[in-house]
Amino acid sequence: MNERLERQLAFALELDKEKNVFRQTSLSGHGRKENDAEHAWHMAVMAYLLKEYANEPVDIAKAMLMCLLHDVVEIDAGDTYAYDEVGKQTQKIRERQAADRIFGMLPEDQQEKLREVFDEFEAGVTPEARFVRAMDNLQPLLLNDSNDGTDWMEHGVCYEQVLKRQSQTKAGSETLYQKTMEILDKHKEQGHI
Amino acid sequence: MNERLERQLAFALELDKEKNVFRQTSLSGHGRKENDAEHAWHMAVMAYLLKEYANEPVDIAKAMLMCLLHDVVEIDAGDTYAYDEVGKQTQKIRERQAADRIFGMLPEDQQEKLREVFDEFEAGVTPEARFVRAMDNLQPLLLNDSNDGTDWMEHGVCYEQVLKRQSQTKAGSETLYQKTMEILDKHKEQGHI
Repeated sequence: MNERLERQLAFALELDKEKNVFRQTSLSGHGRKENDAEHAWHMAVMAYLLKEYANEPVDIAKAMLMCLLHDVVEIDAGDTYAYDEVGKQTQKIRERQAADRIFGMLPEDQQEKLREVFDEFEAGVTPEARFVRAMDNLQPLLLNDSNDGTDWMEHGVCYEQVLKRQSQTKAGSETLYQKTMEILDKHKEQGHI
Repeated sequence: MNERLERQLAFALELDKEKNVFRQTSLSGHGRKENDAEHAWHMAVMAYLLKEYANEPVDIAKAMLMCLLHDVVEIDAGDTYAYDEVGKQTQKIRERQAADRIFGMLPEDQQEKLREVFDEFEAGVTPEARFVRAMDNLQPLLLNDSNDGTDWMEHGVCYEQVLKRQSQTKAGSETLYQKTMEILDKHKEQGHI
């Protein structure tokens, strides 16, 4: 039992490093860049709040856990910006190695369970994975919208790129996709993308 | 429907401010101070990981949601350090007003639901509330332990104060309380508290 608890606590401490992985999204109020831990927290609350808009019924405990864990691999692999086409070529391999190491710290049963949830998100074919992907897109969109689209402008992202990414939201939630399109069209009109 | 979604998204955006509320706990590796959103994220993952040690069975979806929301009021009321005896006198009133305003942004049904979860944590009498309180104590303890107790030393906190706070963990988890005492006794011996 003691060794089991020690492994669980070592994993919990390791996760702390996710607070030092910074994303390309700025906090509202033209704030500093957001980190992965904050992003995951925000997504998990949003998943709970917005679950009524999921296209299919979702197991909310699983969806929240998926939100909380989905970026854990970035402790080793770093954040790959959604519009970084070079980084995205090696992203899968880097993230798989990270998942092996990080989840490998846990007792075997939890290793399997958490890896399953992580892999399910990556595969993106269950209702929970699709809905969590919608949160992963909507959360930074909300912040970027509140900041007049400065994150897109900073990176010179074009409308088609944003559209391609945000189109994943449709599979998770038709309603939230409609709202997303409203927001995107507004920014296109204003020349932010 | 549209007004409902607008209120939910406005609440979600408001929550972003929790990332700017800083605590007295330092990240591992003698890092910067931690903020409330990161702390809540960390607690929610830990609740899932360590649920087998809860004294009573817990509804893990409720416990995770409680972790995620428990510090939302600090957006208005600020963080009150666990050993700030003056701040603690007005803490309850400040936090109640904040809960009224912040949860008040939501559609009525969600306002009620989330406020219920928040108040349940504050009251501390259900299995979930007791276990989440244990996480609220264990999470900063893990970080502080990894940093050789520097947070306690910085604030000149004495052993009896830490003991009083950490004793709440016993009601949530006997096993994690034992582990807590092991850690505290080590730091006492080393003169950190």
